[in-house]
Amino acid sequence: MGILIRDANVVVPVYKAGVYEKSEVVNTSVGILGKNIYFIGRDVPVDFTVDEEINGKGKLVIPGLINAHTHSYMSLFRNSADDLTFMDWLFKRIDPLEGKLVPEDAYWGAKLAIIEMMKSGTTCFCDMQMHIHQTTKAVAETGMRAVVGRGLVGAMEDGGVNEAGRVRMAEAFEEMNDRALTDRLGFFLAPHAPYTCDPGFLKYVADQAKEKELGITIHLSESVSECENMAKDQGMTPIEYADRAGCFDVHTLAAHCVQVTDSDIELLAKKGVNVVSNPASNMKLGNGFAPVKKMMDAGINIALGTDGAASNNSLNLFHELSLMTLIHKGVHKTPQCVSAQEGFAMATVNGAKALGLKGITGTIEVGRRADLAILDMRTPSLTPANDLIAALSYSVNGSEVESLIIDGIITMKDRKILTFDENEVYDKVSQIVDRIGVME
Amino acid sequence: MGILIRDANVVVPVYKAGVYEKSEVVNTSVGILGKNIYFIGRDVPVDFTVDEEINGKGKLVIPGLINAHTHSYMSLFRNSADDLTFMDWLFKRIDPLEGKLVPEDAYWGAKLAIIEMMKSGTTCFCDMQMHIHQTTKAVAETGMRAVVGRGLVGAMEDGGVNEAGRVRMAEAFEEMNDRALTDRLGFFLAPHAPYTCDPGFLKYVADQAKEKELGITIHLSESVSECENMAKDQGMTPIEYADRAGCFDVHTLAAHCVQVTDSDIELLAKKGVNVVSNPASNMKLGNGFAPVKKMMDAGINIALGTDGAASNNSLNLFHELSLMTLIHKGVHKTPQCVSAQEGFAMATVNGAKALGLKGITGTIEVGRRADLAILDMRTPSLTPANDLIAALSYSVNGSEVESLIIDGIITMKDRKILTFDENEVYDKVSQIVDRIGVME
Repeated sequence: MGILIRDANVVVPVYKAGVYEKSEVVNTSVGILGKNIYFIGRDVPVDFTVDEEINGKGKLVIPGLINAHTHSYMSLFRNSADDLTFMDWLFKRIDPLEGKLVPEDAYWGAKLAIIEMMKSGTTCFCDMQMHIHQTTKAVAETGMRAVVGRGLVGAMEDGGVNEAGRVRMAEAFEEMNDRALTDRLGFFLAPHAPYTCDPGFLKYVADQAKEKELGITIHLSESVSECENMAKDQGMTPIEYADRAGCFDVHTLAAHCVQVTDSDIELLAKKGVNVVSNPASNMKLGNGFAPVKKMMDAGINIALGTDGAASNNSLNLFHELSLMTLIHKGVHKTPQCVSAQEGFAMATVNGAKALGLKGITGTIEVGRRADLAILDMRTPSLTPANDLIAALSYSVNGSEVESLIIDGIITMKDRKILTFDENEVYDKVSQIVDRIGVME
Repeated sequence: MGILIRDANVVVPVYKAGVYEKSEVVNTSVGILGKNIYFIGRDVPVDFTVDEEINGKGKLVIPGLINAHTHSYMSLFRNSADDLTFMDWLFKRIDPLEGKLVPEDAYWGAKLAIIEMMKSGTTCFCDMQMHIHQTTKAVAETGMRAVVGRGLVGAMEDGGVNEAGRVRMAEAFEEMNDRALTDRLGFFLAPHAPYTCDPGFLKYVADQAKEKELGITIHLSESVSECENMAKDQGMTPIEYADRAGCFDVHTLAAHCVQVTDSDIELLAKKGVNVVSNPASNMKLGNGFAPVKKMMDAGINIALGTDGAASNNSLNLFHELSLMTLIHKGVHKTPQCVSAQEGFAMATVNGAKALGLKGITGTIEVGRRADLAILDMRTPSLTPANDLIAALSYSVNGSEVESLIIDGIITMKDRKILTFDENEVYDKVSQIVDRIGVME
């Protein structure tokens, strides 16, 4: 199928010596053939057949955003555990609720998350989850793109990996068979965190990743208490702990990295670890502000994530982008700190790299997958049309996204989702929340 | 005209010993007669005639939000001056652009601002502006509610107030004749800041406010350099300076209050000064985080504002509310700091008090003006319907606002503005920006 977006304002990458430098807006047309972007230019190639034409006048076309860290099923717990200490949040609210879920609940939670992400311009996400085959099924059915990992916890016993570790690792591998559902699905191994994976188990996970050529995603150095406990028990930082286990010898995406030392930053940079920062969650749970500026200066690839909806409480990456580009200006009292261009890169091209999808998605370029969002510019946040990259960080709230294309398929048009029944999801989610008694 | 909102989820205030304590959600109906809320309850009074009925099923009805500090005409400069030092922002970008405006431009800028505010649930705002009769005209025509003040700068000379001060003060009073246009308009005297009003002129303004029973709004202690210069030149803080001039002996709304000392806070509390915090602007311009928790603990009434769109860049008060309830948790590493309830109060009832509209707007109660927003709950941010007050801070982005009622008039329905032509505003604003060469 050939889709033509004619005469739009299109956000395209600018490279300097082969390296992504920034994005700029050009007035042009974009042609999509099959899964890919076929041409970008004012003139439609003679060999391009237009099956569907979208009038781009007054529209801003951007690469689909990449939410590099979430737990999609947790959208079920949105707005149910707020203004609580981390311990009350986890043990009094979230853990008991998670215990009541059946696997299919996670499928509906993932679909709710996908509605929210699609409606705010996200075309790809990285999911750490507990119920296998649920996110993957939701991704396959909705037309989303995702990299998925079954959360792993475990420890070594005399006979090797303990039961918890064995069961979850087996589930992780079993879930990878869902690759057959769609090539929009990728997989990471997802050890939960140093405080839930002992050194031997974490080494086992890293070895498996190496052997099977898989990436890893893991929570690292999120809270002060995590780091204090690690210092007391192991005499090192969570980041050193993960490194010693071999996690950084494969492609790794580390979530949070809030409480990091200068030598942690050096280590992350040296090993080429990708970091996904989750500003809303870090503030909401009282963990503070990640040293994003320092990590950027060290050359670390920083992506952007929402974390789960129970600690955000939104999966709207535009909201996260505004936080990312505002809070560090406040922390450093420096209005240039994390510019709109830098934030936008985190939400797109850096996210693609972090998910192992560099060269596949994250930019609007010929040959890349057609993953893009079309924004209505006849909205207050995009009027007047001054600096449109600044607009994406500072004034857009996500509701300007009118249409969404993922893998060459129009998944949303005029804010109506075309690939699945949105209302069915709202109904099912309400039933689940009633059944498990979220607000009791 | 009688409007009935039947069987909705309605956010109503809870009082304790006559003092606002919190808001809660009740399932009920709301009847509006003329400008006011006529009844709240499940049964429609027999004497109530329904001219228009709104089905409240699946809707959340909230008091209209109050944006307690903005410069509406600056929406013309949205996304035109970003990631700059404060001095470059002001002198290289904003000042030269302001010099090119003709008065009517401010009218279109105010209308653009009003579209954005209406579409994100704001029913009332406080405006400090430069071109008289423009915001007032826009407010009168659009159905908005506002408290307006012509920005004043001035100094004392041998013969009394200097020319700049005289001209602006005369304009301020002249503009107050626009009260005749609509009773949705109120007025403050708006001395710009201690660094642009000398002690004598500020005293003159305070005396005028006292004599004519007007409130004052003023920028105070926004940037570090403002406070350093004041300490050097006058040996006091900007807040002490304003107090000595008599500003705090009338109803005063102080904007920003970022760089405040403990004794400043004591003084603000003692004098009953209202503070409007503008978190996005304070971060964006590198001014940092206001000590909101300390000011709350001191009993100061804190309202919420967006500041102008050139330093935010959005007038969406839901965005501001999410910042208010997130950033202080990060600053203090305390997840309970500025709760959803506290933030919501700032955006509504505290704002009403700050604008001198206590008992008139800010809550949904019988006898109050019918200023309210109706949100669609079949949206990801309000699904599942767990804690709906938490939702307003943490997951709603403003686009859920489906309809808006101000002063008993439906100004927006199904996101379409009914009181004026939205498209005309977009066109005029684009022409203005082209004419003055914003992006040249």
